[in-house]
Amino acid sequence: MLSFESDYIEGAHEKILQRLIESNMEQVTGYGADPYCESAKAKIKEACGNPDAEVHFLVGGTQTNMIVIHTMLRPYEGVVAARTGHVSLHEAGAIEAHGHKVLPLPQHQGKLRADDLQEYLEGFWQDENHEHMVFPGMVYISHPTEYGTLYSKKELEELAALCREYKLPLYMDGARLGYALASNNTDVTLPVIADLCDVFYIGGTKVGALCGEAVVFTRHNTPRHFMTMVKQQGALLAKGRLLGIQFDTLFTDNLYYKISRHAIEMAELLKKGFRHKGCRFYLESPTNQQFLIIEDAEAERLKANVVLSFWERTDETHAVYRFATSWATKREDVEALLTIM
Amino acid sequence: MLSFESDYIEGAHEKILQRLIESNMEQVTGYGADPYCESAKAKIKEACGNPDAEVHFLVGGTQTNMIVIHTMLRPYEGVVAARTGHVSLHEAGAIEAHGHKVLPLPQHQGKLRADDLQEYLEGFWQDENHEHMVFPGMVYISHPTEYGTLYSKKELEELAALCREYKLPLYMDGARLGYALASNNTDVTLPVIADLCDVFYIGGTKVGALCGEAVVFTRHNTPRHFMTMVKQQGALLAKGRLLGIQFDTLFTDNLYYKISRHAIEMAELLKKGFRHKGCRFYLESPTNQQFLIIEDAEAERLKANVVLSFWERTDETHAVYRFATSWATKREDVEALLTIM
Amino acid sequence: MLSFESDYIEGAHEKILQRLIESNMEQVTGYGADPYCESAKAKIKEACGNPDAEVHFLVGGTQTNMIVIHTMLRPYEGVVAARTGHVSLHEAGAIEAHGHKVLPLPQHQGKLRADDLQEYLEGFWQDENHEHMVFPGMVYISHPTEYGTLYSKKELEELAALCREYKLPLYMDGARLGYALASNNTDVTLPVIADLCDVFYIGGTKVGALCGEAVVFTRHNTPRHFMTMVKQQGALLAKGRLLGIQFDTLFTDNLYYKISRHAIEMAELLKKGFRHKGCRFYLESPTNQQFLIIEDAEAERLKANVVLSFWERTDETHAVYRFATSWATKREDVEALLTIM
Amino acid sequence: MLSFESDYIEGAHEKILQRLIESNMEQVTGYGADPYCESAKAKIKEACGNPDAEVHFLVGGTQTNMIVIHTMLRPYEGVVAARTGHVSLHEAGAIEAHGHKVLPLPQHQGKLRADDLQEYLEGFWQDENHEHMVFPGMVYISHPTEYGTLYSKKELEELAALCREYKLPLYMDGARLGYALASNNTDVTLPVIADLCDVFYIGGTKVGALCGEAVVFTRHNTPRHFMTMVKQQGALLAKGRLLGIQFDTLFTDNLYYKISRHAIEMAELLKKGFRHKGCRFYLESPTNQQFLIIEDAEAERLKANVVLSFWERTDETHAVYRFATSWATKREDVEALLTIM
Repeated sequence: MLSFESDYIEGAHEKILQRLIESNMEQVTGYGADPYCESAKAKIKEACGNPDAEVHFLVGGTQTNMIVIHTMLRPYEGVVAARTGHVSLHEAGAIEAHGHKVLPLPQHQGKLRADDLQEYLEGFWQDENHEHMVFPGMVYISHPTEYGTLYSKKELEELAALCREYKLPLYMDGARLGYALASNNTDVTLPVIADLCDVFYIGGTKVGALCGEAVVFTRHNTPRHFMTMVKQQGALLAKGRLLGIQFDTLFTDNLYYKISRHAIEMAELLKKGFRHKGCRFYLESPTNQQFLIIEDAEAERLKANVVLSFWERTDETHAVYRFATSWATKREDVEALLTIM
Repeated sequence: MLSFESDYIEGAHEKILQRLIESNMEQVTGYGADPYCESAKAKIKEACGNPDAEVHFLVGGTQTNMIVIHTMLRPYEGVVAARTGHVSLHEAGAIEAHGHKVLPLPQHQGKLRADDLQEYLEGFWQDENHEHMVFPGMVYISHPTEYGTLYSKKELEELAALCREYKLPLYMDGARLGYALASNNTDVTLPVIADLCDVFYIGGTKVGALCGEAVVFTRHNTPRHFMTMVKQQGALLAKGRLLGIQFDTLFTDNLYYKISRHAIEMAELLKKGFRHKGCRFYLESPTNQQFLIIEDAEAERLKANVVLSFWERTDETHAVYRFATSWATKREDVEALLTIM
Repeated sequence: MLSFESDYIEGAHEKILQRLIESNMEQVTGYGADPYCESAKAKIKEACGNPDAEVHFLVGGTQTNMIVIHTMLRPYEGVVAARTGHVSLHEAGAIEAHGHKVLPLPQHQGKLRADDLQEYLEGFWQDENHEHMVFPGMVYISHPTEYGTLYSKKELEELAALCREYKLPLYMDGARLGYALASNNTDVTLPVIADLCDVFYIGGTKVGALCGEAVVFTRHNTPRHFMTMVKQQGALLAKGRLLGIQFDTLFTDNLYYKISRHAIEMAELLKKGFRHKGCRFYLESPTNQQFLIIEDAEAERLKANVVLSFWERTDETHAVYRFATSWATKREDVEALLTIM
Repeated sequence: MLSFESDYIEGAHEKILQRLIESNMEQVTGYGADPYCESAKAKIKEACGNPDAEVHFLVGGTQTNMIVIHTMLRPYEGVVAARTGHVSLHEAGAIEAHGHKVLPLPQHQGKLRADDLQEYLEGFWQDENHEHMVFPGMVYISHPTEYGTLYSKKELEELAALCREYKLPLYMDGARLGYALASNNTDVTLPVIADLCDVFYIGGTKVGALCGEAVVFTRHNTPRHFMTMVKQQGALLAKGRLLGIQFDTLFTDNLYYKISRHAIEMAELLKKGFRHKGCRFYLESPTNQQFLIIEDAEAERLKANVVLSFWERTDETHAVYRFATSWATKREDVEALLTIM
């Protein structure tokens, strides 16, 4: 069976496994106070072009979103997000379970638009009853979005300017950040992100690690006693080295970018092939996730040879399916898939 | 100054005050275990035509919503509500602060429609990723709605049937329930509500009491140790008599209905007058809240003599204002307002 | 039946009821923005000798504790309290339900001692693992305590000095504050409390009001958007006037003190009588609550004529019972009780 | 430097790493629905002698405690634990942050005693005010305890009988369970635990895994939609295989027991050596953690060659230090340490 089900169907990049083995019997202190975490943090700060950034490692994406949002907001605040944002829809209510409303705004191919944000913020502050409402306390965006789309630098600048005006931190969910950075034609680099966002995370789980996300606070704005709150949320690994070693490896010799670039190349190959075959795209995605609208009978036929990842129905006889490439995707699998389609 | 700002600008109906005075020096047990609470509960059960109903008194509307919802839901569940529902918008995130998402559906003049609910519920259960989403755990409606509109008996039956099919409790927020029951042409009586809803509350604060709401569980479905959870939310009055005496008075000699009926008569007078003056209605409301679209210059002129209750802007030069009558509204004030308009 | 069951078995002081009636048909704005609340706040500030104090009205004691504690603490912080503190034992877990641990310290007749507090605080900060523990974020005391005992000014000063040293707000639960202020021989006045505490509340429910507590923040330290968080906890009354009118009355012509003084006089009469009868005191209480150890058979005999308030067992055949006086206690009832004993 | 700082200073057992490598490029479904998780669950059920057990994998100990406790309790319930229990002291308030009080009972070398539990439970239900208190909803024990001590089978039976009588689930925190099972002279086997406890977890992080704990529900009592609540707490790994592969390896060929046995042998060697050297034990521990009372000057001297793990002070000049062995401890390191002492 071929599978383009997601970008987390394999284990970890081999260099990560190799470093785990090499370092295995070294005795290091727990809870993230080990030299691997230190080294990884230094490399990430350098990659961000921000020597003052503060880096923390967490285990997964929902965990990271819930902890960053919960520790940065006050009880009267919620987080603004596109209606399709991961925090809005697919985290099982993690944000609400920790006390905060997700304030949904319109989405445009998964993206939040500055004009929608501005209209909402102006409306909120003009509303005479706003003290009976949830205050906007943070703006959440994902990059790439849940639909694989990307913000341009200009779009990010507009959002960031609005956030500054309204004194709201801008938070970027970078679960698949590598695939954004390695995309063709993007003008959004890691230093750009570190400059425009108040906090963001660099996804590891979906970009070659076994698990792990690196949260970056860019304005000396790590919430006080962050580590204690991480512990309180059950998110502090005793063997913090597991995260340190992985990110240290990913940020050595540009590995994070290189393996992401491979995924993009495979995705571009897929796109080209799909287009050649006359497949119908749900939208234009410049990253590792491609979305096709497939007729039900055809989908059934494909399932004999391909693990299909259902996304959503479009009408009675068609549905959207996701095809994701990753650092681990093999060219021959791409070719095999294209042959079958 | 004339004021139709809201239905909570006066104190309490005089009979309530009189009963407070008469009973003042009687010594009774605290925390709701007093004879006034018992008597009030018995009268409410009778008015509901449901001798098995379980009645509990709480202090205010948001408190009641938050406690009913929090104690009936499991952590993985949220509450479905119209996008304009009070729990969605104007309770400062009380539902989320207690851990649950409000799942917003389209609204039609403030109402939730069975077809929208059905579409959502079918979609949820068909979604292959629904285990990563918030489960619908309850359906919330308000009657009258936040826009003064009412459900018909048929509409309630449709919602109730869907709720039964999906095993979801149907919860009615009756902050202004009296004004619904006393409306012209409604076919929704208290026994109908007690029959169709799994839980609802009879609003006191906005219908003649100083404070207080009566929650009615209709299916032996009071959550276990409800009183302890009420205490845990800071909602258990030491002098529970304050609520018992008020509801006992409101449910003696049909007072709750009579004073609501007065408000409806005053509202109908207002509507007739507004129509005669050519005012522009935002929507048709059969209850005590009337919504007019007023041009800004005209609104400014009115403010010299009338306390206006801003609702929302409709365009650059117009806004919606609410005019609410109540048990306390004087006919001469209605006439004075109409003269000014 | 005679009843000294508690200080909340009657309604409200007659002057409060009178003012409710007089003001009943006045139209005022809701949610605490009415002139009665304003007037009451001014009078309380004056009584505290602190024109900069910030006063807010809430409905009940547990609600007040939970809101003050929740809004002042950060997620990693807990509240330090005597093991017998109301927040530790008898609020059904309200503090924990809102996310915070109650950090219990030894109690001495209900009181927290500065040396215990100091030992705990030093121990916490010296503990190498304290980042894995709940941080002390506030110190809670009750005055009178749950056992009717009082802090001396010197004891409060010691606690306050420690709190300042460790940058912890000192919070006083004054559910029965009137009875402390009116006690014989106390050197703790309202201005002393307003000087030493960062936040405290003046109890209304147990001192002559139908309901209501006045929270006083003494250092311009009301948490930001406090009102929104009050709403979020279901604690904002639409008819805020109910609280304003009551506290305005209680703080007019020294009524709060006068009615508390009456309770103290009745309690002293009881104490003298109990002593004369050879009753066994559980402890020496200078306020309105008296605790006797009564043999079971004697308790059974008394129950024919007196509502007894069980406190706790001391051994197989004896238990502690509470006798509470209040603003409403009648001298003849005291005498009747003493005749029976 | 020698280090016996903890049992999580090395990586993972080499067989685990080997299996991670072997399986690395296999494509499997995410979120725990992979064949490795299935296989590991089957092996754990067999080791428990309970084919009906339900097994779930989580990442760390605090996370497991917080999720098991939060998902099994109702809002009015708390968890009973020894005052020194990990959930009481060293989880940064994770239980309270999720809404529940830890109800502390006396500890005896870290253990909860049935008579203390019985006294508390009887007292709670006899207390006339118990509806204003937190209800006991679960009993938490750790085995080994935080002091390395063990329950006997008889002690567990007594606790389990009480729990059944009061309808409370008995929950065992087995963060170091391997070291309990492999201890000399214990009569508590995995099937005994699976028989007596309603839920427990088998610790991986401290017994040879990189991370991971296996929760076992023994009475078909997994809370409904457990996985969704795991996701909601940010604890669901996308690459669930990471946990499946590790536990599958640990429960193949008795590896979990074998590596634990090694740690016990090393600990016994240490104990014998310490005793021979005349060291002062803080208590008698039959597992991998040994606690010595060391004079401050001596501790300073040792620190030149040994990483010391401070536990707590005993007096002005002495403190307790922990020496932990593990699956990774080398005999030569034990000997080197003994030479230095």
